[in-house]
Amino acid sequence: METTRLEAFADGVFAIAATLLIIDVSVRAPGGELGHAILEAWPEYAAYGVSFVTIGIMWVNHHTCMRQIAAVDRRFLTINLLLLMCIAFVPFPTNLIAEHFHDDGLRAAALTYGVTLTITSVCFGSFWFYAARGGRLLAEDADPRVISGISRSYLPGVPIYGTATLVALWSAKAAVALFGVIALFYLLESSILGSRATS
Amino acid sequence: METTRLEAFADGVFAIAATLLIIDVSVRAPGGELGHAILEAWPEYAAYGVSFVTIGIMWVNHHTCMRQIAAVDRRFLTINLLLLMCIAFVPFPTNLIAEHFHDDGLRAAALTYGVTLTITSVCFGSFWFYAARGGRLLAEDADPRVISGISRSYLPGVPIYGTATLVALWSAKAAVALFGVIALFYLLESSILGSRATS
Amino acid sequence: METTRLEAFADGVFAIAATLLIIDVSVRAPGGELGHAILEAWPEYAAYGVSFVTIGIMWVNHHTCMRQIAAVDRRFLTINLLLLMCIAFVPFPTNLIAEHFHDDGLRAAALTYGVTLTITSVCFGSFWFYAARGGRLLAEDADPRVISGISRSYLPGVPIYGTATLVALWSAKAAVALFGVIALFYLLESSILGSRATS
Amino acid sequence: METTRLEAFADGVFAIAATLLIIDVSVRAPGGELGHAILEAWPEYAAYGVSFVTIGIMWVNHHTCMRQIAAVDRRFLTINLLLLMCIAFVPFPTNLIAEHFHDDGLRAAALTYGVTLTITSVCFGSFWFYAARGGRLLAEDADPRVISGISRSYLPGVPIYGTATLVALWSAKAAVALFGVIALFYLLESSILGSRATS
Repeated sequence: METTRLEAFADGVFAIAATLLIIDVSVRAPGGELGHAILEAWPEYAAYGVSFVTIGIMWVNHHTCMRQIAAVDRRFLTINLLLLMCIAFVPFPTNLIAEHFHDDGLRAAALTYGVTLTITSVCFGSFWFYAARGGRLLAEDADPRVISGISRSYLPGVPIYGTATLVALWSAKAAVALFGVIALFYLLESSILGSRATS
Repeated sequence: METTRLEAFADGVFAIAATLLIIDVSVRAPGGELGHAILEAWPEYAAYGVSFVTIGIMWVNHHTCMRQIAAVDRRFLTINLLLLMCIAFVPFPTNLIAEHFHDDGLRAAALTYGVTLTITSVCFGSFWFYAARGGRLLAEDADPRVISGISRSYLPGVPIYGTATLVALWSAKAAVALFGVIALFYLLESSILGSRATS
Repeated sequence: METTRLEAFADGVFAIAATLLIIDVSVRAPGGELGHAILEAWPEYAAYGVSFVTIGIMWVNHHTCMRQIAAVDRRFLTINLLLLMCIAFVPFPTNLIAEHFHDDGLRAAALTYGVTLTITSVCFGSFWFYAARGGRLLAEDADPRVISGISRSYLPGVPIYGTATLVALWSAKAAVALFGVIALFYLLESSILGSRATS
Repeated sequence: METTRLEAFADGVFAIAATLLIIDVSVRAPGGELGHAILEAWPEYAAYGVSFVTIGIMWVNHHTCMRQIAAVDRRFLTINLLLLMCIAFVPFPTNLIAEHFHDDGLRAAALTYGVTLTITSVCFGSFWFYAARGGRLLAEDADPRVISGISRSYLPGVPIYGTATLVALWSAKAAVALFGVIALFYLLESSILGSRATS
């Protein structure tokens, strides 16, 4: 298995998972009330946006890792498969939050979303640290500063999403707001801090 | 991030968003009335066609830009992600127009479609002008005439879609017709004016 | 636009259109009657199979053409876009046939399927003959026998699907059987006649 | 047809079929009962996981084969198309099992799942042995030990899935558990036994 084939499959899953999110965005109302219903449905668009951006950033991170990786073994393929399984799962809890934003179900929806993203972060950490531990799958000429930079950036993922999940036990709305803030933070961090050319 | 990987992900989102449009085309009727119902559903096919062509032309334009771009920085990745988020959103307002073509909801549906495409045009402009401003991400040997040609062709996008959106406040049907005419215009412009080989 | 990018987008649309066909295959029944309902739903599987094979063969043909084509102009891009729009439309009439196989709606469904594939054949012919006319977009070293072989194989497409569509006016079941036979014929023709290595 | 194009199309179908599985995962409940309903729906997540992993492993195996294959003839294309048709079908019986896990329909659902995967195994065997028989489509420098290793690993596929299918006649739950165990076995076999670099 060359790394390029793994990337082609992963690209497909990332692109499909993100684009499928739109299937769950729908507004059903009689003609005369449609305008009002479209405005009322803002949690659906917000949930779509947050999950699209979250999957998009994970796609960017996946490639940042793959650029340092020169070889693939079967254990790595397995970890990658579990990671993609988590990412393709994201549309489900996204839809739960959108559907139950205005009712009692929001806590359960937010917990499901948080658990999904926490497990995804665990898989993402395993993905990277399995490849990087002792330079197992890295390119020989990989820059140690880039490697340790990626490693440092992966450490906070699990605590951040784990904390947001625990917040849902206290306040579902606060947790949902936090998921949005985390996505926005990652987006702005890329955009503001990272304006150096990377190719 | 190499430009080729960005293109692979973008290709996926464009192809999936366009192909997913068919999911919303459906006709439900008892057997004996099916023929009539299939003919009655022409706004669904028209909406499918207009949005498929619109997404397809945006895909062509995306590649026209990418051919001039030699480097990618993280801010550009962010803009590209927001652009793709808009494009993957198009099936939602497309379905609203198809569902409400014959009732009072058409104005709200047309406004939603227009706002979506206006924001998409803003993102597309940002995408190109961020890369082109001062030659920031362009190839060193990029032809200045090609660059300014692309820039000129991007300027009318926002006013055109913005105007069509405003027309919806006056007449929903006129706005919907205008969306069709705009797609047809871009399609014919490519076809009639642009028969020069580009590869 | 390089031919490889056009192929990447087309590959995506072909693969998605074929794979999306499964969304419309569904059997809803209470537990105790599920076994019976699954057997009763055979037209759904047959329709899935016929359309999957039809789209798959069109994918093979698309690449057979693209291997002879060295350049792409904007008019060709437009024709290609219209062709892909037809192919991505195929799941809709496929589902009509599956849903109405046992009722009065089959004639209307078969006509819709036939018209879709006839128009698709027209687009496919335009796609090839636009590129091949006077060698407009062909590679300079293209083998004239291969070119005229492809041209010959494209001529019967429109009459074959047009005839099957007309048959639906006389007997819907006969037309549906004919769509299956045509797909099987193309599949076996490839398999039995064409065992020469092509790479 | 070059092998790379066949792989691009196959990659698309594998990635889409796996990612589409999430569409059938849904939980509908009033807000106050959502938490309970999400926990109750565990067979949906399990079915999603088992089928995602199964499709993912088939993707890995497909590429393991393709790495040894240097040429493609039209008969091989046809077999590949039938194989992809089976794989894209997997979401249907997966959904049947998830929907009927707690009712009388599980036996019929398990039989459908088993028959689908048995036929898929037959296609996969045909795919490989057609290419490998007498070295028909293999690279000239293919390592005979790798070839016979792949051949050996393909022989048990049909008996394994065939047996699990027959088990469904005796106990539907046992058959479903077996499908999960088979997927887990293939996953762990890759992960534990196969930690050698393969690129």
